Amino acid sequence: MTQSSHAFVILAAGKGSRMLSDRPKVLHQVGSLPLLGHALRSTAPLNPARLIVVAGHGAEAVEEATARLAPAARTVRQTEQLGTAHAVDQARPLLADFDGDVTVLYGDTPFIRTETLERMRAARQSGADVVILGFDTPDPGRYGRLITEGDRVRRIVEFKDASPEERAVTLCNSGVVMAPAALLFDLIAQVGNDNASGEYYLTDIVGLANDRGLTCRAVTCDPAETLGINTRAELAGAEAVFQAARRAEVMAAGATLTAPETVFLSADTEIGQDCVIEPHVVFGPGVTLASGVTIRAFSHLEGATVASGAVVGPYARLRPGAHLAEDARVGNFVEVKNAELARGVKVNHLSYIGDAEIGPASNIGAGTITCNYDGFLKHKTTIGSGAFIGSNTMLVAPVTIGDGANTGSGSVITRDVPEGALAIARARQDNKPGLATRLRDLLRQKKAALTAAKPE
Amino acid sequence: MTQSSHAFVILAAGKGSRMLSDRPKVLHQVGSLPLLGHALRSTAPLNPARLIVVAGHGAEAVEEATARLAPAARTVRQTEQLGTAHAVDQARPLLADFDGDVTVLYGDTPFIRTETLERMRAARQSGADVVILGFDTPDPGRYGRLITEGDRVRRIVEFKDASPEERAVTLCNSGVVMAPAALLFDLIAQVGNDNASGEYYLTDIVGLANDRGLTCRAVTCDPAETLGINTRAELAGAEAVFQAARRAEVMAAGATLTAPETVFLSADTEIGQDCVIEPHVVFGPGVTLASGVTIRAFSHLEGATVASGAVVGPYARLRPGAHLAEDARVGNFVEVKNAELARGVKVNHLSYIGDAEIGPASNIGAGTITCNYDGFLKHKTTIGSGAFIGSNTMLVAPVTIGDGANTGSGSVITRDVPEGALAIARARQDNKPGLATRLRDLLRQKKAALTAAKPE
Amino acid sequence: MTQSSHAFVILAAGKGSRMLSDRPKVLHQVGSLPLLGHALRSTAPLNPARLIVVAGHGAEAVEEATARLAPAARTVRQTEQLGTAHAVDQARPLLADFDGDVTVLYGDTPFIRTETLERMRAARQSGADVVILGFDTPDPGRYGRLITEGDRVRRIVEFKDASPEERAVTLCNSGVVMAPAALLFDLIAQVGNDNASGEYYLTDIVGLANDRGLTCRAVTCDPAETLGINTRAELAGAEAVFQAARRAEVMAAGATLTAPETVFLSADTEIGQDCVIEPHVVFGPGVTLASGVTIRAFSHLEGATVASGAVVGPYARLRPGAHLAEDARVGNFVEVKNAELARGVKVNHLSYIGDAEIGPASNIGAGTITCNYDGFLKHKTTIGSGAFIGSNTMLVAPVTIGDGANTGSGSVITRDVPEGALAIARARQDNKPGLATRLRDLLRQKKAALTAAKPE
Repeated sequence: MTQSSHAFVILAAGKGSRMLSDRPKVLHQVGSLPLLGHALRSTAPLNPARLIVVAGHGAEAVEEATARLAPAARTVRQTEQLGTAHAVDQARPLLADFDGDVTVLYGDTPFIRTETLERMRAARQSGADVVILGFDTPDPGRYGRLITEGDRVRRIVEFKDASPEERAVTLCNSGVVMAPAALLFDLIAQVGNDNASGEYYLTDIVGLANDRGLTCRAVTCDPAETLGINTRAELAGAEAVFQAARRAEVMAAGATLTAPETVFLSADTEIGQDCVIEPHVVFGPGVTLASGVTIRAFSHLEGATVASGAVVGPYARLRPGAHLAEDARVGNFVEVKNAELARGVKVNHLSYIGDAEIGPASNIGAGTITCNYDGFLKHKTTIGSGAFIGSNTMLVAPVTIGDGANTGSGSVITRDVPEGALAIARARQDNKPGLATRLRDLLRQKKAALTAAKPE
Repeated sequence: MTQSSHAFVILAAGKGSRMLSDRPKVLHQVGSLPLLGHALRSTAPLNPARLIVVAGHGAEAVEEATARLAPAARTVRQTEQLGTAHAVDQARPLLADFDGDVTVLYGDTPFIRTETLERMRAARQSGADVVILGFDTPDPGRYGRLITEGDRVRRIVEFKDASPEERAVTLCNSGVVMAPAALLFDLIAQVGNDNASGEYYLTDIVGLANDRGLTCRAVTCDPAETLGINTRAELAGAEAVFQAARRAEVMAAGATLTAPETVFLSADTEIGQDCVIEPHVVFGPGVTLASGVTIRAFSHLEGATVASGAVVGPYARLRPGAHLAEDARVGNFVEVKNAELARGVKVNHLSYIGDAEIGPASNIGAGTITCNYDGFLKHKTTIGSGAFIGSNTMLVAPVTIGDGANTGSGSVITRDVPEGALAIARARQDNKPGLATRLRDLLRQKKAALTAAKPE
Repeated sequence: MTQSSHAFVILAAGKGSRMLSDRPKVLHQVGSLPLLGHALRSTAPLNPARLIVVAGHGAEAVEEATARLAPAARTVRQTEQLGTAHAVDQARPLLADFDGDVTVLYGDTPFIRTETLERMRAARQSGADVVILGFDTPDPGRYGRLITEGDRVRRIVEFKDASPEERAVTLCNSGVVMAPAALLFDLIAQVGNDNASGEYYLTDIVGLANDRGLTCRAVTCDPAETLGINTRAELAGAEAVFQAARRAEVMAAGATLTAPETVFLSADTEIGQDCVIEPHVVFGPGVTLASGVTIRAFSHLEGATVASGAVVGPYARLRPGAHLAEDARVGNFVEVKNAELARGVKVNHLSYIGDAEIGPASNIGAGTITCNYDGFLKHKTTIGSGAFIGSNTMLVAPVTIGDGANTGSGSVITRDVPEGALAIARARQDNKPGLATRLRDLLRQKKAALTAAKPE
């Protein structure tokens, strides 16, 4: 059987008032990725034919984020918040010519697994007209309930409308639904808003489908997948769930996390076998570690790659574009940005390396700074192999230091240094005998005078 | 009904032997505030007419702390530790002329809520002569028990003196008690020390009041409020309780704490809506963040204010008197102390800014240091607007850099720089061809000779 | 009764395939110490006559680690993995002339307590021929079971060979066993490999001893002691158990850990009474703090000693050989390595102090760096008492700064500075009027030109 082509509509129009935020709810982040990004990611392995995000509150920001997170996705706007059926209906024009299946997902529900979506698709392929994602929980609270007969779902009842018998049902509605595009929009067209809220509920399509003699079936998932986020505390809870899962994955793949509860990973962090991650490490987006990398405590990495045998930290800050080759070492209050450090390069103390390329086995002394910014433009520093940059060297870019060249400590290097040369820019040291003592006496007197003059 | 005037006596004389500390127990801290400070804070919204701290062990330190934490409070000394009734009795001279109510609190019990004290006051106002704060717990352990008849408390029985029936009571004594001043001291005068410890117990006043036909009533609170601290482990436990509550408050007010369990707040930390606090951040006392501030990982703030849109960290250390205006940026191993950074100022790498004032949109290069200390006095650095301080500039204070002025990297600036001027203090760079290679050869030979000479 | 002399055989030959590691399992670390080191440590208070480690997978690395961790220990190799009895048998040549007791321990089981081993020894001394360490657990899972009659252990049955009645037994086998050397090897010689795995099981000696009419007894311990490690997740779990225990010890001894869950200790960390450890601190191996030391947040210490009254951090990195005397202060992005800081020395900002000796009350300015490395050798910096090192001073070692001497900020000091002298190495400041403005205009034009030239 060939896979039918598949579209996704992701509802992302809600305000999320309980977040108390100016930011649209779906743009709050878990694992350094907006909630919306998680929903988009879950669809990727299903190779969606169309991907539509319904924006509403903060639509502009949601549209920008969608373009960044999933360039193939399109957005539509729901200008009035008239309910979930109305929200899905905004995607109708973009799906009018589409004859595959459509799945409705939610931008504030980041943990639906791809495997769950695949099981829904299998249910569709084995004959169900509409597939609803449900979950069974001993404590169903105020969730809507799936009312079933045999293996069919007859309707979805909101908690507030449910009878005592219906409230005893523990099979709950996640809101996720899958149906053929034409059928879905056909059913939605029939949904009314004759209810207390005056809203058009997507859940009504199940009853409507049954009225037509169609088959609705439920697929169930782990209740943890359906976790929705409405408050900052729930956001923090979702982050904790996400981190626990990612840490377990990384450990299962053969990395040591000394204290996993203090290590924060992003959705896309890649950590090779036999890496050791010490306590208190933060991985922002876009980090890849090869096998056998050590990340020491208090390190912060974003957009960086690190090759085998390299040691990063403690107190290393790798920013986007930092690429460390084998056996490089960076740490002890060192920041690296947009820089290639070749094999065996050492930047071990109090340095800023930005917009640079450093050749193999070069040693960068403590306090070295690449002066890459002139207030308007960024410039590049190039250092050859086997160079020795003395402590507190200022490398005023653009500048090139040749292979095996040295710079004297405390030098401001503004011109290129040829291979094998020593560059030095330094004033002569002058020892003034007794002057420290005299100065100290003067300052002591001055302080005493000031203290005496100060009113109580 | 007008509120009767109200006094508090806070018992703070205990040694806390199980703390194994030279420091008086009440001066150990939770949320960067001494335990005593928490007790004092809980009374503030009740606008106490008199506030009396009874010091004993480490009295001098307790007196100093009291003066700092609550300048309006007075202290008395209990020179011998003869029991809680005796401790309260030390406050008698300061309350001899006082005709309002007195509440007895404990310096090692930091979590009594103001609202609980208000309920005790309400109970007094509705007719009880003595009001006792109790708590109900399924596991009352060795706490004293409140023995009641109807809505009256008849007496308080210590666990070790309790009969099996009394031990089955789950209403426990917190020790907190409220009564009119004259009555309280009258009852205390009657308390004897005819017991195993030879101590005068404040709890005895309940039985004595009943003997006089007076009404004693209990008000109950959450057992968590009555948490007392006797060991370092209990101190850590109290800190955890405190932090959990504060983090929840901050999130409920609309801030994101990505990983709340790694963020440490002080009692007075104020965090605005839509702030984002990344993992691993410590707030010492006196920090206020406006709305929309981002605090990145590994930052440490004390005594600082940060305006909207500012980004702090990672690795930012804000010390007392650091004031960041809108959209300022400070981070990547930067320390700021007693300094005003105007709108849009950037201090992005490896800098120390102390005793300074920096005008709007100035850019402070990596490695900049305000040399504010001459060994005796601190001096001020003033930087205008739109200045560009080159990397590794030493600003030897007192010194002023004019609007739009630049400094060359690696310069030591000892004199003022006029508006629009470029100040430079730099030795000429000299490239010595081949010298790095020759030096390397010499050093290599020297090392080989030393290694050869070294005995095995 | 004199204590019989005692030998230990520690099995450390396993690969630990589930660790997915190139490193032998017993060299993975908990509390900064390899698992094998924990097993070795547990034997030390029993003053072992012989200590033998059986290496196999990664034998070379295990042998090196053993030499480092316990120089008195010897290693033997098990070249084929034929079971635990076969592993122990490799130690036979080193114990052929030994007439004391032998205890078999496991290199991947780090938490057996010395006190437990002492109880096993007591059981041997009161008449048991073979003593087995067992543990009772309500959930015995797939552990081997100890089958007893009265106070004797009759045999040990593997879970997969156990009958339903045997599986109902909750007394499990830890694998640790103690017996006289001659008897142990005699029994081992009888062990066969006629089982599903074709391996020689050490557990078989119990049945064999019973066949000879010998007495086998069990000593039981806390199941937590027998925790073995097979995966990275279990390694993290063991670390958590270890840290919780060490934190509790440190607090019980009178130190404050504000947030114990964020502080990581090593097996050998020593922390004096009334020390305060703020959140987010990592102690690597070899740290000793005297009483009354404060370690502020985000500090990282290894191989360092700190005397009373010293304040370390925030953001202090103490590396091996850092010794801080009374009232010293180090923090705010400062690294200290192999350096003696005398009483009252302050290194408060952005400095690197390596291979140095600093006299009492000297003040080291922000951005100071000891340039201790010439690319081949390390050299020493010596600073006298009461010296004042100006900000951003480069101390090019070997160099000596006399008592009470000063250095001007931004100076590169290459020659010794006499007592009381002021050393300065600085270019004259030149203010070029209007040049910053003209430069800015030029750069602005250049940027505009580049931006215009850039293709869309």
